[in-house]
Amino acid sequence: MVSTGSEARMDDAAGDVSTQMRALGRRARAAARLIALAPEARRNAALRAMAASLRDRAGPILAANALDLAEARAAGQNAAFIDRLLLDAGRLDDVATAVASVAGLPDPLGRVLASWTQPNGLRFERVATPLGVIAVIFESRPNVTADAGALCLKSGNAAILRAGSDSFRTATEIAVALREGLENAGLPSDAIQLVPTRDRAAVGEILKGLDGNIDVVVPRGGKSLVARVQSDARVPVFAHLDGNCHVYVHAAADLAMAREIVLNAKLRRTGVCGSAETLLVDRACAQTHLRPLVTALLDAGCAVRGDGETQAADARTTPASEEDWATEYLDRIIAVKVVAGLDEAIAHVERYGSHHTDAIVTAEEVAAARFLAEVDSAIVLHNASTQFADGGEFGFGAEIGIATGRMHARGPVGVEQLCSFKYRVHGNGQIRP
Amino acid sequence: MVSTGSEARMDDAAGDVSTQMRALGRRARAAARLIALAPEARRNAALRAMAASLRDRAGPILAANALDLAEARAAGQNAAFIDRLLLDAGRLDDVATAVASVAGLPDPLGRVLASWTQPNGLRFERVATPLGVIAVIFESRPNVTADAGALCLKSGNAAILRAGSDSFRTATEIAVALREGLENAGLPSDAIQLVPTRDRAAVGEILKGLDGNIDVVVPRGGKSLVARVQSDARVPVFAHLDGNCHVYVHAAADLAMAREIVLNAKLRRTGVCGSAETLLVDRACAQTHLRPLVTALLDAGCAVRGDGETQAADARTTPASEEDWATEYLDRIIAVKVVAGLDEAIAHVERYGSHHTDAIVTAEEVAAARFLAEVDSAIVLHNASTQFADGGEFGFGAEIGIATGRMHARGPVGVEQLCSFKYRVHGNGQIRP
Repeated sequence: MVSTGSEARMDDAAGDVSTQMRALGRRARAAARLIALAPEARRNAALRAMAASLRDRAGPILAANALDLAEARAAGQNAAFIDRLLLDAGRLDDVATAVASVAGLPDPLGRVLASWTQPNGLRFERVATPLGVIAVIFESRPNVTADAGALCLKSGNAAILRAGSDSFRTATEIAVALREGLENAGLPSDAIQLVPTRDRAAVGEILKGLDGNIDVVVPRGGKSLVARVQSDARVPVFAHLDGNCHVYVHAAADLAMAREIVLNAKLRRTGVCGSAETLLVDRACAQTHLRPLVTALLDAGCAVRGDGETQAADARTTPASEEDWATEYLDRIIAVKVVAGLDEAIAHVERYGSHHTDAIVTAEEVAAARFLAEVDSAIVLHNASTQFADGGEFGFGAEIGIATGRMHARGPVGVEQLCSFKYRVHGNGQIRP
Repeated sequence: MVSTGSEARMDDAAGDVSTQMRALGRRARAAARLIALAPEARRNAALRAMAASLRDRAGPILAANALDLAEARAAGQNAAFIDRLLLDAGRLDDVATAVASVAGLPDPLGRVLASWTQPNGLRFERVATPLGVIAVIFESRPNVTADAGALCLKSGNAAILRAGSDSFRTATEIAVALREGLENAGLPSDAIQLVPTRDRAAVGEILKGLDGNIDVVVPRGGKSLVARVQSDARVPVFAHLDGNCHVYVHAAADLAMAREIVLNAKLRRTGVCGSAETLLVDRACAQTHLRPLVTALLDAGCAVRGDGETQAADARTTPASEEDWATEYLDRIIAVKVVAGLDEAIAHVERYGSHHTDAIVTAEEVAAARFLAEVDSAIVLHNASTQFADGGEFGFGAEIGIATGRMHARGPVGVEQLCSFKYRVHGNGQIRP
């Protein structure tokens, strides 16, 4: 009948996910305040200490991963799933290297985003500050635990990480290493907390915001996860649901450039959100460009679903249905349509697209400018592949995801996008008349 | 049994607020696209045309206002309420002038917020774009209809305006004038729509987001309105619930400056969100500063609720309870507390404040820097009155409100804060390796 207070609390908590999660939220908020005020050097030292702990703790991490893998295999998961879940010594070292590299990014905090002086002498500064507490909900990739924790710490935020059931043991051991690194650098380990239960009710609690102790939720995973988070969250969400990206080959497009861009946009990697799903070819250049583009795609092993003109270009194509224009294949399939011109191209992208990433290929600046102005997507490109939709390619160093919302974070979400701001106002006794 | 299609639609709509509101949302989205692409000159011409229409239509607007006023008087509303609701020729002219003046603000759209070139030659630009559709829910002040419509138009957004029941007739006539101005300038009148019903169910529909056709909701009114919107909205909200603002008189504060700032922060206008509600005095200067500050407040007609030391300073003070530290009086009342130093001052503000606006008075730069860094409020001031918490005073020209959220808009929300952004990427054939 004797138990320590600590054990008693654990027992209570385990019996009530809501209570447990709300306590976790309070600890995150308390840690967030300390992390927000930690100087850059200490945050960077913690990142390097986290990387060292990940390497030191390779034994328990890989052992936990082996258990997760065994469970996944027993459950009959497919090879792609197993590969996403798999950690080995090399991959874990890459994870540690990625965490340490975040220390090398410029400090996103304290940047003066704008400053000006009013006629009464008041000097205004808009300064970057942390957002607060960021919850990241992810599925089977174990590296997300470390990446997300590192990006949140760099930007002065506390992180609440919810791992998928499949990678729960691996994520737990990775989180132990991250927290050890924080402590070794003199920062509170509660700045990175892994949700300590597989109970799915924990996700519901996160989406309700843990009594105001979560400032933003970032879902990292498949479409059903993102859809649930977007529909149920009572706090802001940084995410995108679809990446139905387009390449529009305009009348004035250079054929060789168009072919390279289309093949890269579709096929470099088909499973990423920035991969192209629909090719629009201007009727004015269809005579010369359509067949070479379609043939190149088919020859590269990509299925082509086309409208009538596209089908006429190569017998290997199949008919596109209305649904194809709205489909994110994430596979070696592309929909191809001939459009009457720039207006129809823009209208098509606006009707069927997902406001993620869309490109025009043209030598005509005026057409490019109109496409870039009128297509209402987070990223619009001229003469470049849609596969550049990536925080690393933007020069952000790393990203926690890509957002298609119109608030705050849009496009790749790097450490700068994980910041809020405040106004600092400097006076010498000003009062308002 | 014969009716036009249009009449039949109106009957259906009137019978179902949800259907009516969702149709209104679709019209707003369609108009938003056109407004977003309208050049600056046309948006400004529309603002001037709206101002002209407001003046031309003074007859019906003031007649509608007379009916609203009669209803309010019959319902026994108090003098302050009647004054907020009242329009006369002079006030209406001020409203029109304010709308026209928005045309003179710099164009917030198309601003290149950042630009850089990657080693592969890709040139990135982050460019300001409209948010889309903004819903503004307000109470009895009729000028909000015009101000909100003008700020949304300037920033390329469509507006859905929901007036309070009390000002419904006035707002309806003002909206007619605004829409006439839009049409006279060749822009779609549906860029500004007033919710055409007093039915409170319309607010619920707005908070659900009208099928994704609302991007942000701005509540303008009392605390209960803001609380309902913040609790029920499924879309982002730009707002603040409380303005429990502090002035901290630090040990190194000049007494004369502190007295001017405290009196102004508390008493210039007591009903605004930036008015000070608590004065913190450092124990190190209490001997010299406390009594003069408390006496000046009391002499100016402000009630003082204080801790023990404050009560000892002047017999006219009354005891402060725990609740007083958390109260936004919006009245000639202030809570006063002696604190042990900077740490206790910051801790007090963080515990009881509302992250709105807080000020330190001190001649010591190091103390000011710590206060400005560690107080987690949208606006932090050094040696200036908290009443500067205002978009006009910031130089924003006009504001639609003040936000205390950590996402996107924080502090005064002017036309720049009503913008989103996109990335324009310029290449010359780049593909991703």
